[in-house]
Amino acid sequence: MGLNEDALELHRSHRGKIATALKIKLENKRDLSLAYTPGVAEVCRAIARSKESVYDYTIKGNTVAVVSDGTAVLGLGDIGPEAAMPVMEGKALLLKAFANVDAFPICLGTKDVEEIVNIVTNIAPAFGGVNLEDISAPRCFEIEERLQNLGIPVMHDDQHGTAIVILAALINTSKITGKKLEDMRIVISGAGAAGTAVANLLLCVGVDKKICTSVREIIVCDRKGIINRDRTDLTGPKKKLAEHTNPNNTTGSLSDAMKGADVFIGLSTANLVSSDMVKSMAAKSVVFAMANPVPEIMPEEAKAAGAFIVGSGRSDYPNQINNVLAFPGVFRGALDVRASRIDNRMKISAAHALANCISSPTVEKILPDALDKTVAPAVAEAVRKAARESGLARV
Amino acid sequence: MGLNEDALELHRSHRGKIATALKIKLENKRDLSLAYTPGVAEVCRAIARSKESVYDYTIKGNTVAVVSDGTAVLGLGDIGPEAAMPVMEGKALLLKAFANVDAFPICLGTKDVEEIVNIVTNIAPAFGGVNLEDISAPRCFEIEERLQNLGIPVMHDDQHGTAIVILAALINTSKITGKKLEDMRIVISGAGAAGTAVANLLLCVGVDKKICTSVREIIVCDRKGIINRDRTDLTGPKKKLAEHTNPNNTTGSLSDAMKGADVFIGLSTANLVSSDMVKSMAAKSVVFAMANPVPEIMPEEAKAAGAFIVGSGRSDYPNQINNVLAFPGVFRGALDVRASRIDNRMKISAAHALANCISSPTVEKILPDALDKTVAPAVAEAVRKAARESGLARV
Repeated sequence: MGLNEDALELHRSHRGKIATALKIKLENKRDLSLAYTPGVAEVCRAIARSKESVYDYTIKGNTVAVVSDGTAVLGLGDIGPEAAMPVMEGKALLLKAFANVDAFPICLGTKDVEEIVNIVTNIAPAFGGVNLEDISAPRCFEIEERLQNLGIPVMHDDQHGTAIVILAALINTSKITGKKLEDMRIVISGAGAAGTAVANLLLCVGVDKKICTSVREIIVCDRKGIINRDRTDLTGPKKKLAEHTNPNNTTGSLSDAMKGADVFIGLSTANLVSSDMVKSMAAKSVVFAMANPVPEIMPEEAKAAGAFIVGSGRSDYPNQINNVLAFPGVFRGALDVRASRIDNRMKISAAHALANCISSPTVEKILPDALDKTVAPAVAEAVRKAARESGLARV
Repeated sequence: MGLNEDALELHRSHRGKIATALKIKLENKRDLSLAYTPGVAEVCRAIARSKESVYDYTIKGNTVAVVSDGTAVLGLGDIGPEAAMPVMEGKALLLKAFANVDAFPICLGTKDVEEIVNIVTNIAPAFGGVNLEDISAPRCFEIEERLQNLGIPVMHDDQHGTAIVILAALINTSKITGKKLEDMRIVISGAGAAGTAVANLLLCVGVDKKICTSVREIIVCDRKGIINRDRTDLTGPKKKLAEHTNPNNTTGSLSDAMKGADVFIGLSTANLVSSDMVKSMAAKSVVFAMANPVPEIMPEEAKAAGAFIVGSGRSDYPNQINNVLAFPGVFRGALDVRASRIDNRMKISAAHALANCISSPTVEKILPDALDKTVAPAVAEAVRKAARESGLARV
């Protein structure tokens, strides 16, 4: 059978991918009286006296809510909360498998920003962190921003998980090409959740120079072309991008932007990039064509057109750029130190740790394998350290 | 160490009682591509085409949200959502252990009825059922009622779990005392969530005579005494109780109510009942003193005062009347047939099935042991059958 049929069969035969499990035994009256009434009352009282002890006595400290409203699921768009479930269960599965984080899908029957903020805020007592997922732009920016003071880490993975992995990939391409990050001209195709977050992380606003050097030039393109300060159609997050990117305020199409660029990062849609566009890039060009499932340009075509290093979201080509390399370790680290939020320092440190998982990057191996179990612990360690440096660690 | 210290240590050493677990393996690229991208996209598409197939491909059909706002936790009152967690995890643990239901605690940082209804409605896409828990009266009545059209079973366990187990206990006392349910005079102390639900189930409004016969007389007492139609201080659910219970509209105190009563059901507070009050009951009297952790009257005192059958919530005396005998099987059965709700027929059938788990009830053994693993399957079978009879089964 093909992949699609196998995937359907796998999900159908197991009725999903995760379950709950017992951490304690329940064999006799004593077990029951400790785990449930009457013994549990003493545990409740202890937490009532000191709310913070909820981390000591319950699952909160190791538990992440994977929250989606199903509006931007994979490349499938707004397919609703039920249809989003397989992806959210998948995230929960990966968080458990790679980082021993207990995660649970929360798929919401509302797209209203106020309601989503209110719901996440009100379910937060049971969770140690929140992984926002597959929420469409620009609502995802406001939702995430408004949840940053919740006291637990809240991260929209489509934004920051992607940004961390791409930054890691760039760090390692830099080791191969010899081009420093601060000398790179980077073109991002796509000004949605991922494109915006990648641009923002590369701009590296407000972060200590030791761990981050802003790149020379970032140009972001949306469907209408280069985002610049003369465009009158921009609002909200895109207007901010126009202010902070594109230092020379160039205009034109994606094709214009790519002329002489060192790096192309595609977070947009299939087949937007031609061979000629790749040919117009600088020497030792890097092409990350991440549109899912069909990239902006197929890897073999980009290679044939002269791209030096090519990556994509696909597992059937070298250099798969996959969020799973970031989010499990990021949440593991953030939970371990009870970080009150996830800041740029933690993301950038995660990217460096991820990049360092490959000791000698090559053109065909810039990132670890998605199944490499050593990655999440390394990322988690970097995140814990960065959280302490940022003063965001609470233990 | 004592029970309290052991309970604290158990919770602390495991950091809570439940975890998530993987239902599938994740060892190679193929596994990852089936469980996550790109294969998962086909599963999402299948559900987007037919929303009901979410039951086939995801955890929804076996998953229950255990929802509390922490306002009425055990006998501890309004201790907040964090301090409620150990109980909600405990429910999730018991649902898994006894009925293989995957349940997850959702502890809410709001007490507002509108917000709670809105949150539960909006998280429903990921859940096959909702167990409301430890929400204070009278808000619990409105919240539960307003969620009955959600399309998945929503049950407030403090109400209906308790009512089912008490009805089962009464059915079996009836076999011992020879008194039929329809001849009993029953006094309920406590007009909160549990007391009200017990009265309503015993009144058995609108249910087919074959499975339910209303009792002769139910008198409910609150802190001010007997609830009757002359009281001007009653609102909402208590006003309804005044209309449907107490057929002779008697007045007076709990002590007055108990004179000549066949059954006392305490769902109130410690030490409300004296020996003299038990002595004033009818011959072969039944005393269920369920206040937690200290009953309305201690079992040995009730016995000494002449009570024929005595039960309590405690595991250290015979006849423990424990919700765990009901809710796991009720949810198992409701999930199995994708019941759109849980009606009185399902509750009453559950009570009969539970009662029948004891073939020959005795004065010291009216209900199965709380750890008896045969109970939940028997209850589930009865619930499935009743749901089909009620036309509430969707598969």
